[in-house]
Amino acid sequence: MSELIRQRAQGARQASQVLAISTEATRNAALDAIATALETRRDEILAANQKDIEAAEAMVEEGKLDAPLLKRLNLGGAKFAATVEMVHSVRAQLDPLGQTQSAIELDSGLDLYRVSVPIGVIGVIFESRPDALVQIACICLKSGNAVLLKGGREAAASNRILAQIIDAATAAIDGIPPGWLTLLETREDVGAILDLDHDIDLIIPRGGNEFVQYIMSHTNIPVMGHADGICHVYIDATADLDKAVRIAVDSKTQYVSVCNAAETLLVHQDIAAAFLDRALPALEKEKVELRGDGRTRSLAGNNGRVIAATQEDWSTEYLDYILSIKVVDNLEEAIAHINTYSSHHTDAIVSEDTNAAQQFLRSVDSASVLHNASTRFADGFRYGLGAEVGISTNRLHSRGPVGLEGLTIYKYILQGDGHTVADFEGDTPKTYTHRPLDKAWRSS
Amino acid sequence: MSELIRQRAQGARQASQVLAISTEATRNAALDAIATALETRRDEILAANQKDIEAAEAMVEEGKLDAPLLKRLNLGGAKFAATVEMVHSVRAQLDPLGQTQSAIELDSGLDLYRVSVPIGVIGVIFESRPDALVQIACICLKSGNAVLLKGGREAAASNRILAQIIDAATAAIDGIPPGWLTLLETREDVGAILDLDHDIDLIIPRGGNEFVQYIMSHTNIPVMGHADGICHVYIDATADLDKAVRIAVDSKTQYVSVCNAAETLLVHQDIAAAFLDRALPALEKEKVELRGDGRTRSLAGNNGRVIAATQEDWSTEYLDYILSIKVVDNLEEAIAHINTYSSHHTDAIVSEDTNAAQQFLRSVDSASVLHNASTRFADGFRYGLGAEVGISTNRLHSRGPVGLEGLTIYKYILQGDGHTVADFEGDTPKTYTHRPLDKAWRSS
Repeated sequence: MSELIRQRAQGARQASQVLAISTEATRNAALDAIATALETRRDEILAANQKDIEAAEAMVEEGKLDAPLLKRLNLGGAKFAATVEMVHSVRAQLDPLGQTQSAIELDSGLDLYRVSVPIGVIGVIFESRPDALVQIACICLKSGNAVLLKGGREAAASNRILAQIIDAATAAIDGIPPGWLTLLETREDVGAILDLDHDIDLIIPRGGNEFVQYIMSHTNIPVMGHADGICHVYIDATADLDKAVRIAVDSKTQYVSVCNAAETLLVHQDIAAAFLDRALPALEKEKVELRGDGRTRSLAGNNGRVIAATQEDWSTEYLDYILSIKVVDNLEEAIAHINTYSSHHTDAIVSEDTNAAQQFLRSVDSASVLHNASTRFADGFRYGLGAEVGISTNRLHSRGPVGLEGLTIYKYILQGDGHTVADFEGDTPKTYTHRPLDKAWRSS
Repeated sequence: MSELIRQRAQGARQASQVLAISTEATRNAALDAIATALETRRDEILAANQKDIEAAEAMVEEGKLDAPLLKRLNLGGAKFAATVEMVHSVRAQLDPLGQTQSAIELDSGLDLYRVSVPIGVIGVIFESRPDALVQIACICLKSGNAVLLKGGREAAASNRILAQIIDAATAAIDGIPPGWLTLLETREDVGAILDLDHDIDLIIPRGGNEFVQYIMSHTNIPVMGHADGICHVYIDATADLDKAVRIAVDSKTQYVSVCNAAETLLVHQDIAAAFLDRALPALEKEKVELRGDGRTRSLAGNNGRVIAATQEDWSTEYLDYILSIKVVDNLEEAIAHINTYSSHHTDAIVSEDTNAAQQFLRSVDSASVLHNASTRFADGFRYGLGAEVGISTNRLHSRGPVGLEGLTIYKYILQGDGHTVADFEGDTPKTYTHRPLDKAWRSS
């Protein structure tokens, strides 16, 4: 079995070399074909999806699956239209390939360009959402990468028809190589994918915390993503109370089950009484369970409104209507707390003091740092990246929300006219000009 | 022992958070202090280096070490001056930190910046060259990264004095945190470093092929570098013979023991007779051993000038005065050969046909692709990057020669005025402006 997967991965490598030199027009035509095919074969897709849903419903009744999975699994209604719209949105993005990132003359007639190219072969392992298959396939196609997809067992029928439709639609486009997209279906495939160091360049896991952590710790292939999102909002001494309450409530409650929702509120001692007096009722109105340190509970009146937070709360991602609250002595304590407990995903300060804000933004070591804005903004669409591959807490390659650019790397292209290094060494060496050039490769 | 190393790595993490927000002036002052201290304490350094050299000489005599190591070990003469000059050169580079890479307005008063920051903690494992310690320490310092260094046993005395001098010189600079540089000395330390997934963000190995391959296959930490450099020069049908011979000779012989030297020459069948007629004598003059396929040997006269190449030759990095030669039917065969056997480091085409050159540059999947220029140009200094961390054949983060920018990543900084995501959703949602901004963070 794993030999078959290796063959498919090697097929993906060959396809990636063709895709890497495909034109933007070819890749866009293939995306158009996918959008059309999805619309045309809507009924088939929804019928397959219905099978998955019915099987899952039976398992939920037997207590073998959690109910929220059913919502993620369902491709019908607005989800279907949004999926097709997403294909158009990916197509509309600026071509991420062939972009000249820098150009410099090394010597007369010797010009160096750094030009964006695809990474190569991407392995994507995702849990129950079948729309993720379409999204990732389209992002890989637009960015010229071949892709091996492994979906969740619960979405097997949906994934199979979607992969077939995408494969058939793109096979009809001249210049799109066979094998650029492969769906792997058996459970053993995950392990086989994670072992393919030489054939897969990047793994993108899409799913919950434990799932992503499992992937990250079981492969030598680079993994792009984040395991958890323990995000903080810090209310500084000089915060505007209106803004502070609005941002705290939005960060916590606008959508609780996502990685950029806030889990911990830190409050400067000087503003704690005034802030909590307004923030606690606002949070209670949204039915948020509150867990506080001693000072928070004391200010709240110690009447059971705020449960005692334990040490574990500071490192817990609730993904629920629960918020931990801690009163801190000063900005430095807030920064130290965040740099200790944050998952380095997204952290915000609310402050009217520009210097304090700058210190926070510089010192907090997270992918997104925000001043007077909700943590919920940390998202590829809101950041203007168009399509989003995911959000990365890596410290290499891509950090924060990742768009198409995150699936590219670059090559150096040097255009000479018979130049040799020997001429720049020895007794009467030429010297490098290292003059910046204002031109793009290909237009030269 | 490994617990001690973990503590030092955690100390490095703390130091990295201070270094990350240090000013350019502070980091430059520290680099000045290093250059001055190296000059001042030259005699001590060379005395320690002499000890290493004498011990190594004894081992070479006993056959326990290879003689070329002695040259790499020696810090005296021009090497010392070049090392100090390198410190000045790193200092002179543009600050890699705090650069605004993009700026976009999301809404009125809500501005998003992408700003360069250090990676964090770098682990560097290097073989015998002690000047590598100085170079890497300075590059890490300039780019705001803390560093754990592990040098070769042969250079132990040299490394110890160099690390002490750098540590003492920078400790005197206000704003440089203690623990930003740590030298690890025992043999067991390598394994301990490779295990520190959570404390080290990036490993840079500096040494030979087997050494780098060992590092790459024994750690879950991202590794930046290249194991080998099997570089090709392809002589196309329309090549100018003068340029072709010069580039072939320079690529092979200008410095044979480095990763960007050519190992294989591919020659289009239509030009093979004319090219080999001129190239073989030129290569023989440089005492290059020639290994060819059947057609090459036949054209060479089959008189023993060209040894028969075996399959193994196409995937061998000689790092010596040896060159394999193959006659190919056409450009496509050359590209396919290179994409199969190249280490994706550096490959060149010599051609007067612009279309053929463009096809080669686009299709050859290597970090550097060159047209009518020697493979020996693929180097950070020649590419105008100033200081060079190394050359990467990775397909993520950095590819090809890596300068200071390769030791940075970015964070997103969002500056708002009380903005919440709820305002952009619901019944009468605001829409994102996503308007590019022409300003840098901090100057705003």
